[in-house]
Amino acid sequence: MGSPICEAFGRNLRAIRKSKGFSQERLAHETGIDRSYVGKIERGEVNITIEKIYLLADHLQCSPKDLLI
Amino acid sequence: MGSPICEAFGRNLRAIRKSKGFSQERLAHETGIDRSYVGKIERGEVNITIEKIYLLADHLQCSPKDLLI
Repeated sequence: MGSPICEAFGRNLRAIRKSKGFSQERLAHETGIDRSYVGKIERGEVNITIEKIYLLADHLQCSPKDLLI
Repeated sequence: MGSPICEAFGRNLRAIRKSKGFSQERLAHETGIDRSYVGKIERGEVNITIEKIYLLADHLQCSPKDLLI
């Protein structure tokens, strides 16, 4: 379904989200991204844009670079 | 027109492209991205996707992280 790049990004996002103690629901709520869309990103089903990468990093208080593999 | 994030990415891409000795035409040809689209990316007019970030980094022989600010 997703590309290896999107899947690796999704796995990394999920690991960082959990390490910061965020649920998918909380991350979705704080970023304004639909919860089902956060799930799609984490499963690598979305070719995410740079603005969403920065938005997620901002709320997870990490560098956008940390979200890349 | 573009967002500050896209503009910063574009400026960074242009600087790295030039430092590697690539013209826009060569980068476009090697990546298969339309040359006018490369121009739009560098002017920050495109909310670029992660797959294109990796594609550009691959051909510029740099890390995708290097293209982020």
